[in-house]
Amino acid sequence: MTERYLDDFAVGQRFHSGRLRIDTEQIKAFAAAFDPQPFHLDDKAARDTLFHGLAASGWHTAAAAMRLLVTGGLPFASGIVGLGGEIVWPKPTRPGDTLHVESEIVEITPSRSKPHQGIVTVRGTMFNQNQEAVYVLTAKLLVSRRTNGK
Amino acid sequence: MTERYLDDFAVGQRFHSGRLRIDTEQIKAFAAAFDPQPFHLDDKAARDTLFHGLAASGWHTAAAAMRLLVTGGLPFASGIVGLGGEIVWPKPTRPGDTLHVESEIVEITPSRSKPHQGIVTVRGTMFNQNQEAVYVLTAKLLVSRRTNGK
Repeated sequence: MTERYLDDFAVGQRFHSGRLRIDTEQIKAFAAAFDPQPFHLDDKAARDTLFHGLAASGWHTAAAAMRLLVTGGLPFASGIVGLGGEIVWPKPTRPGDTLHVESEIVEITPSRSKPHQGIVTVRGTMFNQNQEAVYVLTAKLLVSRRTNGK
Repeated sequence: MTERYLDDFAVGQRFHSGRLRIDTEQIKAFAAAFDPQPFHLDDKAARDTLFHGLAASGWHTAAAAMRLLVTGGLPFASGIVGLGGEIVWPKPTRPGDTLHVESEIVEITPSRSKPHQGIVTVRGTMFNQNQEAVYVLTAKLLVSRRTNGK
């Protein structure tokens, strides 16, 4: 996939990532490091919580989505650099889920003050193997403009 | 710190987390797993990017904030479970930064349909050792209500 600059995008363009499987050990390791709560750490303890079973930390879900975007899901020549965004976790990520991200360009705003860059707003939805959305991120990304010679 | 239920919170209440130091090895390890881009992986390559030096992945920053909230930063008796929120990264997290989160309760909404729970909106700002904000998360959290006997 060709890497693209701001000038190469159009509102409505869509991109698809590869797939990534999340297993129990990864869920527990991420939680131990960053989100040590019973429903992310222990299968048995998780049963009596509102998750009704082990679930990945929402930040593990977010990090998995970033991995899918960076490794081919979003072909930004200057890298994927977020200024901020809105996130929703409609459902938890479960052990054994296989995830992929579908992204859509929703807005393109060249910078007025910095001619070499702009902001591209992308809505990425991560689905599990049952086509259930587990994560939606609408992010403002800093993107370089194509310059002479590129 | 006493753990609290929805009924124990009031708009305007503030909470402070402990502190967490992020080092170069942690930044590179997180990036290798979830956000393998040059400005998060390699000091030298990072110099010529818009970060002008190694910076933590924004998702590493987000995960570090969650760790600070879960380990004493936000005393929710039923755990910290987010439905979604808005995030901003005003500045990058750098190697050697020592971070802490200051949180404020901004809205409390008991559920109409589920009498045992509600949504608490919390704005958490994570600062580095220079009191510069590196992360602001305004999140809707699912919180249990105090029941008889608790």
